[in-house]
Amino acid sequence: MDSRTSRRLRAAAASVAVALAASTSLGLLAAPALAATPDITEHGGAARNDGDMTDALRESIVDGPAKNVILLIGDGMGDSEITVARDYAEGAAGRFAGIDALPLTGQYTTYSIDEAGKPNYASESASTASAWSTGTKTANGRLSVDVSNAPQATLLEIAKANGLKTGNVSTAEIQDATPGAQIAHISARGCYGPEQTSKNCSAEALENGGLGSISEQLLNVRPDVTLGGGAASFAQTAKAGPWMGQTLSDQARDRGYALVKDAAGLEAITTADADQPLLGLFSEGNFPVRWNGPAATDLTVGGELPAPVSCTENPDRLATGLSLASLTSKAIDLLDNDNGFFLQVEGASIDKQDHAANACGQIGETVDLDEAVQVALEFARTQGDTLVVVTADHAHTSQIVGSAIPGLNTHLLTADGQPLIVAYGTSPAGGSQQHTGSQVRIAGYGPGAANVVGLTDQTDLFFTAANGLALSQNLAALSGQATVSVPAEVRPGDPLTVAADGFAADWQLSGTASTTGDLGQRDALRGSANFTTTAPTAEGTYEVTVSGAQTGVVKTASFRVSASAAPALTTTPTPLPSPTAGAGAAGAGQNGNGSPLAMTGAALPLGALVLAVGLLAVGVTLRLRRRRRTEFV
Amino acid sequence: MDSRTSRRLRAAAASVAVALAASTSLGLLAAPALAATPDITEHGGAARNDGDMTDALRESIVDGPAKNVILLIGDGMGDSEITVARDYAEGAAGRFAGIDALPLTGQYTTYSIDEAGKPNYASESASTASAWSTGTKTANGRLSVDVSNAPQATLLEIAKANGLKTGNVSTAEIQDATPGAQIAHISARGCYGPEQTSKNCSAEALENGGLGSISEQLLNVRPDVTLGGGAASFAQTAKAGPWMGQTLSDQARDRGYALVKDAAGLEAITTADADQPLLGLFSEGNFPVRWNGPAATDLTVGGELPAPVSCTENPDRLATGLSLASLTSKAIDLLDNDNGFFLQVEGASIDKQDHAANACGQIGETVDLDEAVQVALEFARTQGDTLVVVTADHAHTSQIVGSAIPGLNTHLLTADGQPLIVAYGTSPAGGSQQHTGSQVRIAGYGPGAANVVGLTDQTDLFFTAANGLALSQNLAALSGQATVSVPAEVRPGDPLTVAADGFAADWQLSGTASTTGDLGQRDALRGSANFTTTAPTAEGTYEVTVSGAQTGVVKTASFRVSASAAPALTTTPTPLPSPTAGAGAAGAGQNGNGSPLAMTGAALPLGALVLAVGLLAVGVTLRLRRRRRTEFV
Repeated sequence: MDSRTSRRLRAAAASVAVALAASTSLGLLAAPALAATPDITEHGGAARNDGDMTDALRESIVDGPAKNVILLIGDGMGDSEITVARDYAEGAAGRFAGIDALPLTGQYTTYSIDEAGKPNYASESASTASAWSTGTKTANGRLSVDVSNAPQATLLEIAKANGLKTGNVSTAEIQDATPGAQIAHISARGCYGPEQTSKNCSAEALENGGLGSISEQLLNVRPDVTLGGGAASFAQTAKAGPWMGQTLSDQARDRGYALVKDAAGLEAITTADADQPLLGLFSEGNFPVRWNGPAATDLTVGGELPAPVSCTENPDRLATGLSLASLTSKAIDLLDNDNGFFLQVEGASIDKQDHAANACGQIGETVDLDEAVQVALEFARTQGDTLVVVTADHAHTSQIVGSAIPGLNTHLLTADGQPLIVAYGTSPAGGSQQHTGSQVRIAGYGPGAANVVGLTDQTDLFFTAANGLALSQNLAALSGQATVSVPAEVRPGDPLTVAADGFAADWQLSGTASTTGDLGQRDALRGSANFTTTAPTAEGTYEVTVSGAQTGVVKTASFRVSASAAPALTTTPTPLPSPTAGAGAAGAGQNGNGSPLAMTGAALPLGALVLAVGLLAVGVTLRLRRRRRTEFV
Repeated sequence: MDSRTSRRLRAAAASVAVALAASTSLGLLAAPALAATPDITEHGGAARNDGDMTDALRESIVDGPAKNVILLIGDGMGDSEITVARDYAEGAAGRFAGIDALPLTGQYTTYSIDEAGKPNYASESASTASAWSTGTKTANGRLSVDVSNAPQATLLEIAKANGLKTGNVSTAEIQDATPGAQIAHISARGCYGPEQTSKNCSAEALENGGLGSISEQLLNVRPDVTLGGGAASFAQTAKAGPWMGQTLSDQARDRGYALVKDAAGLEAITTADADQPLLGLFSEGNFPVRWNGPAATDLTVGGELPAPVSCTENPDRLATGLSLASLTSKAIDLLDNDNGFFLQVEGASIDKQDHAANACGQIGETVDLDEAVQVALEFARTQGDTLVVVTADHAHTSQIVGSAIPGLNTHLLTADGQPLIVAYGTSPAGGSQQHTGSQVRIAGYGPGAANVVGLTDQTDLFFTAANGLALSQNLAALSGQATVSVPAEVRPGDPLTVAADGFAADWQLSGTASTTGDLGQRDALRGSANFTTTAPTAEGTYEVTVSGAQTGVVKTASFRVSASAAPALTTTPTPLPSPTAGAGAAGAGQNGNGSPLAMTGAALPLGALVLAVGLLAVGVTLRLRRRRRTEFV
């Protein structure tokens, strides 16, 4: 037996042993069975693999499509931040039960582009979140618009258009870059509410014909579940549109949202869907962090590193029912359905505390995210048909060093009982530590997760998720099968209901009357909405036209006004607006519905679409009024 | 057809298209076919995956064992260093043809341990190289000894013991930490030659019964191919042992090494094996770097960042025939054989230039390593049975930032024509920038490469390689089948040859004569060596004993001294040393052979082992003299 033959026989035997070991792990990486108290000084004592992992890896590769995607983002969670947190909280030889358990891993690039379309090597959360949300690179500070500011459809929007339920969870203000990129298209990430938008994004303000502030766009997109901070912006009042003068909170209630603001309120919610989306805003701004710790010591001009200390619990932390893990769990409960869901979860303040050179803050938020990942993986493991991806938007400043740097340093005592120096050297004390441009880790589990392995770009994650869910990205085609129904005949002046259905990729539907103004805009629930008006008084054949606000798809239907038609069943006809009503201060055809008609679509159950059989005559043609629209693919 | 069914059908169609696309890539990641001039501003324009990669990833997972392992180390090449180099040399959307082409990727932890056996979060190249070389964590500064300074067998040694050819290539001094960890066991990485060892590692000095300096241990291990810098140490003279007073270069020649020092010399070498190992030392110290660039600008006390500039070629760079890629190619040519090989290749000065805050130096060395990776992958791709792993020993300081830091900054103009700021903030100007403790990328291709995916530790790489090659790590067992042969009968006073064979895991074999001193130590070539002496003058039955210096395996044989035996064929008997000769200043039983007998083993062809049929009587029993030995598993 030659050398190679004997080696092959040994390998075969090892392979069998490993297959047995791996078969119990359900595809997630776990610590070796005997490693509860590994002796890292021993030969093999620090190894993490449980024997040969070839078969285990093979088993972890599952063909798509997935039913669900859960995307968990550690904002600013570069490899250094992961290691800082692991060293502190689990020990150097430890393993995060969530973050470190995903079997498929790779690196991705996070650069953004400048306004000339050339790479910008130091990106930020808006451009990076836009990259995976839309598959399109953009300039720093922008949300889901391209380099020419043209809106790009997001994963959340596309998932919704494909009939999936959608969720968006963050420990930040829900308007912040990462959650914001899934639900808004705007040139400046700071335009949270109407006030900031009028001031800093005036072209996008409702009163100027734009899509509105991030908060207002959120209400338009209508994800099934939205949980985070950022209540403050919802106290602002709309400056145009049908809710002009109302607070965004009131608007949300008017449009059917269930608003909750604490753990008890959240606990009471048992369903969240298009009819009653959940909007949970649990803090005015960002969530308080989980852990506190010492301020970093500035050794710029020399001095001594203090003795190492431990992090402490932040007494101001929200109730544990509002931890990221709890919110993730609740979101999954509410979203799980036969057609699948897309959920994004962000641990936002890893980044924010890294900016602040606050090691304990940063570490606690990483631990917090890890628990959310555990929740997602537990669901995916039992459900069996869910793609889970964990990654960061960009790398950050914090570094583990052996001796204090001539800048900011925090000296911590870790789970190993050992000193750990976390250094921040990209800004002077008091300044904001900078993002860094390193490629970062991306890890996945479940159907389609193979696409995170190797070197990818952040924009690949869009395709990993969209293709992993087998989503059609042709949103115009998804709405292209829409129908508009009116009664074949209606009596002059009788109530008339126009039922639009199948506008799968549109969140609002609208039309205008050529002689009497807009019929208004409606929230499309599952692609459907009703418009109610009165029929013209003159007999004849008329046409109604409904258009999708997002896709621009236009559908028409005709009806006859005839005195001999059967009476309409609808009892409370709304008078048509006057021809000029839609063009006034409210900004006709803009994000608001441009008419004094109350939005009724949001309160209509899906079955209502076929209730209107009245036969009234309307002396108008309902037609499309095009708006600046999202350039859906 | 419900939503999920239609999504599944779309996914199936996409999967077929991808399988076709992936089938041409031979398992390596390549830029999408149409991406020669991708427009990164377009939707999908920055994506790197060529469609769904699930089947491609599946195909990239190949069961071991591998015939060969090529391990390429970028010293200090953390994810940040990779990204810095890619951004500069290839552009942000670019891809290194080597480093970025490996299909299987993960992260590994690089912590070391302190002398108490607890984690040290900021490691260095000696402890980290020891971790993958031996599978055992150790303290910073040590080479392939454990926390109690007990030697640990290395991948190179184990591969050799299993009958593979071995190679060790670096752009550093060949005694430097990364190459040193494969061939030496010593408590301080700086003990390159006898001088430093006597001074700083006195317990390990030959004259004190130790294993000797790193260079001397290298000569003992006798890899088939050793290429790098570090000629200076070979001008030092041995302080003990059989080559006491000779330079290490002369010793190497005496022991059969082919010494080369330039590209022409290397070009002339066509074989390298146990009989004539290749030792190419092409610079006195480390190799000159490939690229030069501006010194980093110190903005600690404010000031302006200079305009961005390009890196320049270093005119002092060695001939391209001595580039890391060329050396890797030559090493592979010399090592490729039916029993397989283990080759380690290090791009050493990524780290060294990062320490020096020299961005262009660091980047050029990364580019240099990438070309070596390309060579390795090209061999692996065509050979089909080779595991290639690319990783780093530890992360480092350099960071990509958006604005200059209050420390050292270098402003470069990249392949994109864009400005790139590389910042160094872990030491003041003039100091050595620090290693950092982040987990780093590990990537693999070929049989067994699946073991790099997910989160592993640096020590796992030892098992990935050793198990990937199906190596037996039981070195004592590998030498356990050894035999010692002597003629059954020999005439009194005739020459006597003792043939030792099958000491697979021993590089030196030795014995002592109970009445007349050591028979000396021999280099074991492929586990074999001959000892020649003269038979005792008194008739009787005698025993000879040969022991392996590395495993401690002891084998004996007996022979009769009889006047009626046939004459010995050997014509030049060497007198036995006097009983005290082996215990003198030369350090009997230490690394030297402890006797005035010249080492003849190194010059003996394998066939010589069975030539000795003389029947002489020797008045001694050859017996083991145990030494402090490598604690081989």
